[in-house]
Amino acid sequence: MPGLCHSRGVMSDTAEPLFQRVALIGIGLIASSLARAIRAHGLAVEVVATSRSAETRARAAELGIVDVVFDDAAECASGADLVVLAVPVRASGSVAAAIAPGLAPGVIVTDVGSVKGSVIKVVQPLLPDGVSFVPGHPIAGTEHSGPDAGFAELFEGRWCVLTPTPETDAAAIERVAALWRAIGSRVDIMDPEHHDVVLAITSHIPHLIAYNIVATVSDLEDRTKKEVIKYAAGGFRDFTRIAASDPVMWRDVFLANREAVLEMLATFNEDLTRVQRAIRRGEGDFLEELFTETRAVRRGVIEAEQA
Amino acid sequence: MPGLCHSRGVMSDTAEPLFQRVALIGIGLIASSLARAIRAHGLAVEVVATSRSAETRARAAELGIVDVVFDDAAECASGADLVVLAVPVRASGSVAAAIAPGLAPGVIVTDVGSVKGSVIKVVQPLLPDGVSFVPGHPIAGTEHSGPDAGFAELFEGRWCVLTPTPETDAAAIERVAALWRAIGSRVDIMDPEHHDVVLAITSHIPHLIAYNIVATVSDLEDRTKKEVIKYAAGGFRDFTRIAASDPVMWRDVFLANREAVLEMLATFNEDLTRVQRAIRRGEGDFLEELFTETRAVRRGVIEAEQA
Repeated sequence: MPGLCHSRGVMSDTAEPLFQRVALIGIGLIASSLARAIRAHGLAVEVVATSRSAETRARAAELGIVDVVFDDAAECASGADLVVLAVPVRASGSVAAAIAPGLAPGVIVTDVGSVKGSVIKVVQPLLPDGVSFVPGHPIAGTEHSGPDAGFAELFEGRWCVLTPTPETDAAAIERVAALWRAIGSRVDIMDPEHHDVVLAITSHIPHLIAYNIVATVSDLEDRTKKEVIKYAAGGFRDFTRIAASDPVMWRDVFLANREAVLEMLATFNEDLTRVQRAIRRGEGDFLEELFTETRAVRRGVIEAEQA
Repeated sequence: MPGLCHSRGVMSDTAEPLFQRVALIGIGLIASSLARAIRAHGLAVEVVATSRSAETRARAAELGIVDVVFDDAAECASGADLVVLAVPVRASGSVAAAIAPGLAPGVIVTDVGSVKGSVIKVVQPLLPDGVSFVPGHPIAGTEHSGPDAGFAELFEGRWCVLTPTPETDAAAIERVAALWRAIGSRVDIMDPEHHDVVLAITSHIPHLIAYNIVATVSDLEDRTKKEVIKYAAGGFRDFTRIAASDPVMWRDVFLANREAVLEMLATFNEDLTRVQRAIRRGEGDFLEELFTETRAVRRGVIEAEQA
């Protein structure tokens, strides 16, 4: 059955294709960036995609960022040698169940979810023998969503973390790693549970806090809310950017990584209570010392980016 | 007594000077930006400065961003027609006390502190009759501090909030407003107490939260901390930038605006507890709705900046 559109992408001559056909299940910010990057670097003979939303499918077809847009996930995945799950993490199981029957031995399935433990637990058992699942997470993104938001350079210089299990085929890991490297990412291998703890701190808690403070403002009476928005340059603006990220994606992240998120949140709350107490009691030395310590972390981040 | 350096700045021909001599008490990010902007726009015949720190005074002299650097605040302020207090807010009182005896009638004193109520309470009673205090707060800044960090364009397109009291001389307010407008700021007049509540939300709480989450990371065991720094691009990086701001300035902000900060923090904590509960109980609909609401605030911020 034909998809919505069938236009050949311009192939780059700079690289041998790593895959014959890459199927993207979901075509939001991450998958549409991946489609553009794969094409820009000539890494696949064909890139196809699908989305649950008819509107998103139509838009992806209009943008011409993939060769075929399919209405159906199973059809999209069938015949691909690499299938990328790029859906909100709690949809991974139903998508894997839908595409599994059509996957031939030798096919590689990967994903781009921000949570790895729960995705592996759900997806791995659904895949047929001979199909390798290479769980992955490109640590890249913007506050924008949908196929229009993607761009080929999104992954350049960013980390992509792969979290294979003991069952994962080593050759499959290497092929997926090669794809990420070819589009400019640095690849790390990590234990899934450890990934989820580290990401709870670096990404999930910051998003949760940003959502929460923006929600607090959202509940203020109108006059104050207008002024907060007007004077947002004082610091609040950065939080609104983070809190503009895709609601469904983030809902799923918090629920799928519940344990690590709640644990880190407890630590954050303990620390905040200590700071609150210091303000109430006028403990200036404590505050100054704390605010000086945090500068060292900033220096670490700057050095790590230059490395 | 001569200061550390005495070099004439290049005067711009584009404007009549608004002041004969502007004295900057403190020469960090804000005051050194103000010095550069005043010179760039030719708004004073002379700009002089002082700092409590010998190192900062030497650096300001080396940079040549003011005409004279004084060792002493009273000498610096003496003979100026505009004195700008640009010190951590809790130092405002001691600085005002030191300069007050040398201020002639007609002199205007202003400040740039992020908290207004407590500064007015301390500074106003110390100034001699005929000296006008125009409390001010330019809502602009970066995470960098010190005289090297300043730049003439810092205030362009940013709000400067003036918070006069019923006693403040109207002509003095207008002259200070004219200065800020001339260097590119938009000026608003606001009640001091209301300013402190609005800024608690737009600026103080975001900084406190950022400091706190970075401090939480700072306390992690080494391996995890290194990884958090490595993968900071996931959201944490933005917090480290905010949490790299000047520790003494921020210590003073939280203590000087204690009441409004603790009140907003209580609201933030209530909201966070509600979100925490939703994650624990798997209430996906609640989370999705909340994360959708916050996008509206982001749109408001973007529209306000384009206005």
